[in-house]
Amino acid sequence: MIKAGIIGSTGYAGQELVRLLMQHPQAEVVWYGSKSYIGKKYYEVFHNMFEIVDDTCLDDNMEELSSQVDVIFTATPQGLCASLVNEEVLSKVKVIDLSADFRIKDVSVYEEWYGIKHANPQFIQEAVYGLCEINREKIKGARLLANPGCYPTCSILSIYPLLKEGMIDADTIIIDAKSGTSGAGRSAKTANLYCEVNENIKAYGVASHRHTPEIEEQLGIAAGKQFVLNFTPHLVPMNRGILVTAYANVKGDATKEEIRAVYEDYYKDEKFVRVLETGVCPETRFVEGSNYVDVNFKLDTRTKRVVMMGAMDNLVKGAAGQAVQNMNLMFGLPETMGLELVPVFP
Amino acid sequence: MIKAGIIGSTGYAGQELVRLLMQHPQAEVVWYGSKSYIGKKYYEVFHNMFEIVDDTCLDDNMEELSSQVDVIFTATPQGLCASLVNEEVLSKVKVIDLSADFRIKDVSVYEEWYGIKHANPQFIQEAVYGLCEINREKIKGARLLANPGCYPTCSILSIYPLLKEGMIDADTIIIDAKSGTSGAGRSAKTANLYCEVNENIKAYGVASHRHTPEIEEQLGIAAGKQFVLNFTPHLVPMNRGILVTAYANVKGDATKEEIRAVYEDYYKDEKFVRVLETGVCPETRFVEGSNYVDVNFKLDTRTKRVVMMGAMDNLVKGAAGQAVQNMNLMFGLPETMGLELVPVFP
Amino acid sequence: MIKAGIIGSTGYAGQELVRLLMQHPQAEVVWYGSKSYIGKKYYEVFHNMFEIVDDTCLDDNMEELSSQVDVIFTATPQGLCASLVNEEVLSKVKVIDLSADFRIKDVSVYEEWYGIKHANPQFIQEAVYGLCEINREKIKGARLLANPGCYPTCSILSIYPLLKEGMIDADTIIIDAKSGTSGAGRSAKTANLYCEVNENIKAYGVASHRHTPEIEEQLGIAAGKQFVLNFTPHLVPMNRGILVTAYANVKGDATKEEIRAVYEDYYKDEKFVRVLETGVCPETRFVEGSNYVDVNFKLDTRTKRVVMMGAMDNLVKGAAGQAVQNMNLMFGLPETMGLELVPVFP
Amino acid sequence: MIKAGIIGSTGYAGQELVRLLMQHPQAEVVWYGSKSYIGKKYYEVFHNMFEIVDDTCLDDNMEELSSQVDVIFTATPQGLCASLVNEEVLSKVKVIDLSADFRIKDVSVYEEWYGIKHANPQFIQEAVYGLCEINREKIKGARLLANPGCYPTCSILSIYPLLKEGMIDADTIIIDAKSGTSGAGRSAKTANLYCEVNENIKAYGVASHRHTPEIEEQLGIAAGKQFVLNFTPHLVPMNRGILVTAYANVKGDATKEEIRAVYEDYYKDEKFVRVLETGVCPETRFVEGSNYVDVNFKLDTRTKRVVMMGAMDNLVKGAAGQAVQNMNLMFGLPETMGLELVPVFP
Repeated sequence: MIKAGIIGSTGYAGQELVRLLMQHPQAEVVWYGSKSYIGKKYYEVFHNMFEIVDDTCLDDNMEELSSQVDVIFTATPQGLCASLVNEEVLSKVKVIDLSADFRIKDVSVYEEWYGIKHANPQFIQEAVYGLCEINREKIKGARLLANPGCYPTCSILSIYPLLKEGMIDADTIIIDAKSGTSGAGRSAKTANLYCEVNENIKAYGVASHRHTPEIEEQLGIAAGKQFVLNFTPHLVPMNRGILVTAYANVKGDATKEEIRAVYEDYYKDEKFVRVLETGVCPETRFVEGSNYVDVNFKLDTRTKRVVMMGAMDNLVKGAAGQAVQNMNLMFGLPETMGLELVPVFP
Repeated sequence: MIKAGIIGSTGYAGQELVRLLMQHPQAEVVWYGSKSYIGKKYYEVFHNMFEIVDDTCLDDNMEELSSQVDVIFTATPQGLCASLVNEEVLSKVKVIDLSADFRIKDVSVYEEWYGIKHANPQFIQEAVYGLCEINREKIKGARLLANPGCYPTCSILSIYPLLKEGMIDADTIIIDAKSGTSGAGRSAKTANLYCEVNENIKAYGVASHRHTPEIEEQLGIAAGKQFVLNFTPHLVPMNRGILVTAYANVKGDATKEEIRAVYEDYYKDEKFVRVLETGVCPETRFVEGSNYVDVNFKLDTRTKRVVMMGAMDNLVKGAAGQAVQNMNLMFGLPETMGLELVPVFP
Repeated sequence: MIKAGIIGSTGYAGQELVRLLMQHPQAEVVWYGSKSYIGKKYYEVFHNMFEIVDDTCLDDNMEELSSQVDVIFTATPQGLCASLVNEEVLSKVKVIDLSADFRIKDVSVYEEWYGIKHANPQFIQEAVYGLCEINREKIKGARLLANPGCYPTCSILSIYPLLKEGMIDADTIIIDAKSGTSGAGRSAKTANLYCEVNENIKAYGVASHRHTPEIEEQLGIAAGKQFVLNFTPHLVPMNRGILVTAYANVKGDATKEEIRAVYEDYYKDEKFVRVLETGVCPETRFVEGSNYVDVNFKLDTRTKRVVMMGAMDNLVKGAAGQAVQNMNLMFGLPETMGLELVPVFP
Repeated sequence: MIKAGIIGSTGYAGQELVRLLMQHPQAEVVWYGSKSYIGKKYYEVFHNMFEIVDDTCLDDNMEELSSQVDVIFTATPQGLCASLVNEEVLSKVKVIDLSADFRIKDVSVYEEWYGIKHANPQFIQEAVYGLCEINREKIKGARLLANPGCYPTCSILSIYPLLKEGMIDADTIIIDAKSGTSGAGRSAKTANLYCEVNENIKAYGVASHRHTPEIEEQLGIAAGKQFVLNFTPHLVPMNRGILVTAYANVKGDATKEEIRAVYEDYYKDEKFVRVLETGVCPETRFVEGSNYVDVNFKLDTRTKRVVMMGAMDNLVKGAAGQAVQNMNLMFGLPETMGLELVPVFP
């Protein structure tokens, strides 16, 4: 039985981790970390956990934690994991960081986009970017895992096959993404009140969202060159879900059959990526509560562009589910263990 | 392995049954019945099931079905199950009816409130009302099970202990209930369009809703006498969830401690009924996707009334989950098998 | 042209007042008071007002304000208006208080339910309870007007005619109310975040909500005696709207025709109360953005209770619209001026 | 007083026309046409109109209508207006068509994208495309007005100034649009049920939506050449609102100041187009219920693309409001008459 500790267990992603690990046959949560609710019963913070979790929230002490558990998940704001991690911790325990601290290899890019100084850049190179479908083998041996961001997960998986195969022009990629509101976190802000979000859609972080360099770095690896793209996130009045609509110019004369063949080839053995049938657009409702990413595309022969689409649950495949998938790989368990969740609809 | 057939698998309750049975270790669905989608892949009707269910929808043939499966679930409009069931079917297979056909013992009451003639009233007495927390023993031996309505399940479990113990006056009971929109079904009606339901709340079926006699009959058994009550359902702009707010005059001088003791005593061994802590009101979000009913009360010493509250997921405990709970009992399996679902929040 | 000042113009009710007064032919807002946004452009707080309101937010200075305007609206938390009002202010300007400070005649009841000491109880008797349909004549001469609470407005107008005519038993009244989330205000609280409110319904303030004594006092006047009742508010995932479902035992053998006649008689000359046709239940979507209250009832001959229903927009008739209606009366203008708003649907 | 008849008054756009014309000082609706509700009171179809509209629905008889009214609005499915219009009608009455029948000048393009044969193509050249901000002078003299589509209105107004001024490369334009659900109409379809739309976002009509050629034709005029673009609409769980996020490569070295200057110059005298302040993104909630289009842009100096954004209410500026704006121009009234609606928030 894997003993897991969660630093930041009282945010939405942290709570989703608890939900998934509760139902995982080989793992159990033994430390519910929380800066804001120390001493409170976990079920008092999340009443859905009443009579399911009886633990009390503890503080975010990674030092102490590292001697009690096998794996630490950090579901905390940027900068915290970077400041806590050290060689001693990593020698005792595996760390899966759901924040952005170890995702970007170039520390100056991280510091510029996030506006904070990285406390322990010496671990960045060691950290493995945990997008299982692409980095599976590296993940298996990782001590420090950088769990991908929600938008990057959905964006990369939607675009990767065509870019890697050289079927689209990297310099024309535009990603228009839409997210449910749980992605904005659980802290009390006027902008995230019900009446401010409901009956509204807006873009935010236009040409400046922090997930941009993460997407560019990963897709740059696929393209074999660095390039820049446009990424525009939008806030949608729903709890969960991310939809990516991405555009790129098709190179040469690729047909829709050829494009489909690439997607199917790349994902034929991937349990959690479903390439939908021709003409079926991904919808967030059909992946809710599950670890699936649904992808599909439409070739526009008039404009010679391909529209690449992906849908997933931002709290599962976009955060907690992917973290468990990574944990499974890191501990030599079947990758799908505890994650064979049927999407909940409606 | 229990082989299950579902007649009416393409409604919301039918699909929820599929979701639950997919995750049940001792049952599998082998017949996806559907009047409207015969010949279509099930995942074409519900895309969440893509790469999970590969079956094709079949017609609603109970005769044929009864020789292929161990249990038949009917998640169909009123009248259909009553018309299909017969001695031969019941001799071969267990039937769990999610419609109202066999819930009400007095056929004239059924025919009056539902406005249809009952096709096979001879099976009504044999049918067992499948509210597990109350009729557990009878359910174990049933061939024909009447799965309770969504509103009745939540109403009865909220009120039953106090009524049974004679702590409230039956003749003063008023039930004000609120339901998410999946309870209205999946057929295409203008009244259930997004723009008609969103940003709105309304009462409907005031003093005439068909669940009224079902609640009265079951609570009448608890009270040891027949009585009438007010039941008012409301439609709420959300997908899932039922909240019951019920009112009754307290008999004598019962204190809140005494009332609490009754609830705790009645439900102390019930996995799926959670008596919340003092002062915590049930909320539908904390049971979503799970088989829990959360109940609590507030004693108003000014008016000498008790406000009894219950929250559950109408598609799980209010339909498919309870049906699986009944199946477990009828087949001698642990009652909670396949139902230990952690509520999904947010 | 009436010059109006608003203290607390940056809450939801304050902003709705601005919206209504912008469209009022005989009034204009000249003071946008706000504790939190002093010095900011009003349209920076509410971008819908861009190119419509060019004013800057000022502080909440009633003294200064009273020499610049004809009427002051206070849309502020409880206690503030009570602390600011004095004889000098009232001698210069009319005050319409949207808080509860002057609604309850018995100051000890106010202090008990609101948990604060009233700063200027000497003005309570003078203050007029501004429910236009009932207190129209008194309102015309008022200097200090207590604008009714949202729940009380809808509750009282739904119940008043039958209670006043002695057709229902006061001691059996139960009010089950449901409100959209704008009623919870605009301050940043975790409980009011989108993901906490969406896909949920809950009761709150059960047997303890502060609007209870206000309703009891006003209905007590109608009944000719003091009595207590149950009032249970619920939070609904929608922006605007209140629905009241109220229950009471019918006295004697009143028929539905007699009951209807009472409603129609009481409201036949009331522009803003619509008695719906037989069988039509009030719905909040059909009054949204308007000053209407839609009422109707259903007589349950089985239980001998009447179900009284009312729907209105909590920000209009429940707050800002009623305040403007009161202003019109207090300044001798046609009562409906600026309020002939067609409900916005969908 | 302008007498108006509405053919198709019982759809969402038709009802919004009624709402706006009710509040217009120089127009009145005298014919409520409806194929589905002939003989029913209009308020029975839309209860918000109770005690406001007392008229009964009539059939869709344009012949008869043309001798009774001054202007006919057709808010009907594609093909109907084209089939009804003729020289006699146009000689007696002005026709404002909210369908697509007369928007596209090239009839073969219309017939290809809409899949129907145009019944009266001889009137297409005469018809004026009613985007007031661009075609104001032509509209004043029109007999037959083609009211623009909702997506085209928002898309064109967001992109037009930069394209017309040659600041962006037409061949790189990509429009990613998001719409509330009222745009899907009021007919009963499973896909538009509350539970199917709620908690979901999806793209639809990818590379095939009928508004594409309309946008291309109008922007082609601005660009001085024909070109193709990508247009992807998405369905958002909200009642009203369209948000456009459009992308294009900037030509040369235009700075953000130069781009802003173009927008401000083009729209400085336009009442209904608000160019938001630097850094403020358009949001649908801030235009709801009003005739405004809010536009803004962000120049991405990394990718040398400009992100152009627009938000409006699809039922007002995207349908009924623009129709009234056109009516005002066609009848020599002030363009803003009856349309100075303050956006309703929240």
